[in-house]
Amino acid sequence: MNQKLFFTLLFGLFLLSGISHYAHFGTTIEFIISAAAILFVAGFLGKATESVAHYAGQRLGGFLNATFGNAAELIIAIFLVREGLFDMVKASITGSIIGNLLLVLGASVLLGGLKFKEQKFNVQLASHNSSLMILAVIALAIPAIFISNQHFSAGSAEFLSITIAVILIVAYVLWLIFSMVTHKDILEDVEETTPDHGEEPAWSKGTSIIFLVLATAMTAFVSEWLVSTLHTFTADFGFSEVFVGAFLIAIVGNAAEHSAAVLLAMKNKIGAAVEIAVGSSLQIALFVAPVLILVSTLFGPTMDIVFSPIELTAIAVSVFIAKSISRDGKTNWYEGALLLIVYIILGISFYLI
Amino acid sequence: MNQKLFFTLLFGLFLLSGISHYAHFGTTIEFIISAAAILFVAGFLGKATESVAHYAGQRLGGFLNATFGNAAELIIAIFLVREGLFDMVKASITGSIIGNLLLVLGASVLLGGLKFKEQKFNVQLASHNSSLMILAVIALAIPAIFISNQHFSAGSAEFLSITIAVILIVAYVLWLIFSMVTHKDILEDVEETTPDHGEEPAWSKGTSIIFLVLATAMTAFVSEWLVSTLHTFTADFGFSEVFVGAFLIAIVGNAAEHSAAVLLAMKNKIGAAVEIAVGSSLQIALFVAPVLILVSTLFGPTMDIVFSPIELTAIAVSVFIAKSISRDGKTNWYEGALLLIVYIILGISFYLI
Amino acid sequence: MNQKLFFTLLFGLFLLSGISHYAHFGTTIEFIISAAAILFVAGFLGKATESVAHYAGQRLGGFLNATFGNAAELIIAIFLVREGLFDMVKASITGSIIGNLLLVLGASVLLGGLKFKEQKFNVQLASHNSSLMILAVIALAIPAIFISNQHFSAGSAEFLSITIAVILIVAYVLWLIFSMVTHKDILEDVEETTPDHGEEPAWSKGTSIIFLVLATAMTAFVSEWLVSTLHTFTADFGFSEVFVGAFLIAIVGNAAEHSAAVLLAMKNKIGAAVEIAVGSSLQIALFVAPVLILVSTLFGPTMDIVFSPIELTAIAVSVFIAKSISRDGKTNWYEGALLLIVYIILGISFYLI
Repeated sequence: MNQKLFFTLLFGLFLLSGISHYAHFGTTIEFIISAAAILFVAGFLGKATESVAHYAGQRLGGFLNATFGNAAELIIAIFLVREGLFDMVKASITGSIIGNLLLVLGASVLLGGLKFKEQKFNVQLASHNSSLMILAVIALAIPAIFISNQHFSAGSAEFLSITIAVILIVAYVLWLIFSMVTHKDILEDVEETTPDHGEEPAWSKGTSIIFLVLATAMTAFVSEWLVSTLHTFTADFGFSEVFVGAFLIAIVGNAAEHSAAVLLAMKNKIGAAVEIAVGSSLQIALFVAPVLILVSTLFGPTMDIVFSPIELTAIAVSVFIAKSISRDGKTNWYEGALLLIVYIILGISFYLI
Repeated sequence: MNQKLFFTLLFGLFLLSGISHYAHFGTTIEFIISAAAILFVAGFLGKATESVAHYAGQRLGGFLNATFGNAAELIIAIFLVREGLFDMVKASITGSIIGNLLLVLGASVLLGGLKFKEQKFNVQLASHNSSLMILAVIALAIPAIFISNQHFSAGSAEFLSITIAVILIVAYVLWLIFSMVTHKDILEDVEETTPDHGEEPAWSKGTSIIFLVLATAMTAFVSEWLVSTLHTFTADFGFSEVFVGAFLIAIVGNAAEHSAAVLLAMKNKIGAAVEIAVGSSLQIALFVAPVLILVSTLFGPTMDIVFSPIELTAIAVSVFIAKSISRDGKTNWYEGALLLIVYIILGISFYLI
Repeated sequence: MNQKLFFTLLFGLFLLSGISHYAHFGTTIEFIISAAAILFVAGFLGKATESVAHYAGQRLGGFLNATFGNAAELIIAIFLVREGLFDMVKASITGSIIGNLLLVLGASVLLGGLKFKEQKFNVQLASHNSSLMILAVIALAIPAIFISNQHFSAGSAEFLSITIAVILIVAYVLWLIFSMVTHKDILEDVEETTPDHGEEPAWSKGTSIIFLVLATAMTAFVSEWLVSTLHTFTADFGFSEVFVGAFLIAIVGNAAEHSAAVLLAMKNKIGAAVEIAVGSSLQIALFVAPVLILVSTLFGPTMDIVFSPIELTAIAVSVFIAKSISRDGKTNWYEGALLLIVYIILGISFYLI
């Protein structure tokens, strides 16, 4: 899509979404317009982040990408937290993780595999990330299993949630230090397929910073407009909070990454596509989720870290099938189809709740 | 066993089983004779299928082997479904999967390993199948976990069961396309150890087809006779439906493959033995089980796809230990002993229910 | 630590512990002194075992190390069993396994990794042990899942516990035969990094045997003194039996191995450190735990093999993250940090129960 068309759609949908919100066009139309607008503002925010990261130099830029790469989702989720829609927040975290590991990775591997018989990527890439994904599953599963099997006081459950959130953020910061400072060279050999290296950004340094601020503000507005429709929207259509969070919100919030990964796979850069999908899942599990728990303490009752058994099942299942498929460093269309099949099974199951 | 003795026993036991059924010899004797007869008709059906597959050419023949390889079990299970013995059907599916992954594979690896210090096979063989086995575990576990944790209406549970059955059959058909059409060459390099290549069948084309029809009919009769005894038999001996399905029925229905795999392992063809055991498990999980759910809709109430926690545990445990042992492409007697030990632990636990 | 100082502390703390026990110094002070004494008598017992094993020749010595390597823990646990503190026994088994796989391995990998950028060890080492660890998880999980999902009579549960205990001991003995007799040569190539080869013991043969008897007796006495304080101690401080067993007892009983593994890692012998941590976990799961069940039948009601869901979660989680990290035969500081993070999450969760 060329820049002019992109900006026209971006600002057009943003304005339309604002008008429909303040003029009360009706829940369904407001939901559709704001969801369409989110697609563009999230894409804009992603591009602006990458552009600023480019000018910030390798280390600070890497840090920016690593912490703000899922900024759009974080902003949407903060508005959900403020509304007290904790079930929808957790569902959207679940949906982002399974969406990245099954839908994004599956579509990339399937479409890449239809074009190229076998696509290869560096195995170490997968191996380095897989222990982190297991940590994420463990950290999310342990509180749920402990709290459902033992009597915990409300205070203990809150303390456990906040402590685990802090520990996960520490683990994420240590990972950034490991991958960007102490073992940068080892991982760089591996990540030669990374998408951004060497690509010149389209905007100057000053423009990039202004755009980043603008994109963040726009994302915040549209997120608020979108979230304000959800209560009525789910009631009108009889969707569960969990289904809306895990599928609608998660797909809209991640669409920009989805298309980027698929395009890379179709250029035979499957390694970069894998990195986007897995890296984004890790960021959500180890950074976005714990930040949301800490943020919730600012607004009122703490959101606990206790995911439901079906959410944990969905996350664990996605991690294991993605691990199994990426372990050998080779992909083919059937492996992509398998990932999508698991996504469809989960989607139908969530829909039927 | 030479052909003459085989056919004598086959037709002798078939006749005896029929006589004992119609003359009402008594449940226990009828059960024992029909179980012995099943061993031979299932073996006969397997040989006839292979023989017809040989004359059908590589592609159609591969398809025949892939879909009718577990025909005997499918036929027995259809009669169980018609009788409404759903718990026994699911138990026999469970029993076939764990029987193949633990008993058949364990006995092959142990007995092969006592003769040869270390047996090797192509690692890719295991790797290609392991993602499919994980899909099977996921597809069977998700409905159980969702339905036990959330309120599903009876209609939703039925819809979910039928949908997942259709999805699994689609996954299986895609797998056949992948392994027999688009990526045939890659897998063929791997499967040089496949048992049947190049072996001339004992019967002519016409005889093979007649034998296939005859064997199918005989299997259907003996299955009906066997199933008709089960209700009284389990009641008389105090066995649970689950134990009979998971161990007695599963062992009788799979005996032909069991002996084939062990004989191959003792000829140092451990790769072919692994392929029989794992391939048969996949066929049962991804083809036989969903077909039985669809078949049940013809007879009355739909059999749901909800396996019990202990059945899912048994299946998951078998998949993980088999995966762990086959991952390095090398086997020794101790690994076979480990598989058998897990089978014994499961067997005792099921027996004590 | 030089020998003279070690013996002074050993006998000094032993005497002090005895005096404090018989003179009733008070529960807290008795607990602290006996815990300190256990550190030294367990270390003494470990050294004496190794020394006797050295003189006993390779095969018998290997057997001695394999069965008495966790003798101190076994002795403490026997006194717990005699007191009927079954929950604490199971918690201490859990704590020993997770302590070895997360705390010992994590500290070794982290501290070794801070000194050396990347440490390598033979991958086969990990692969040979990982199937055994999975067997251990399966054998402990199956009774819990079966008994919690089905009606088992008390007699059946007891029969299942004793049978599984016997099966695990058989599996362990078969493993000793495999690794010390039939496949000794294959594993020896792998275990070139084993700590003890070639190191001369400090004591003569006669002294070693006397010291082994003395150390066993001292361990038994101090264990009894320690265990006698636990009932009052946990009540006074409001700790749960499970927390005391899983963390306090397990850390005190394993301290000698902990320091040995960390010191080896810091000398860049990470393979030996991995072997201590994983080997010790295996010994506890496959030998110490089943022996305790059989021992319990001598004192009164049989201790069943049913671990609680949170204990099984902790064990399974530790096995999977340790497997994931050790699979590639390379370690770095971040992987050690990950293991310690999981240990901290589990520790806090157990503490809050």
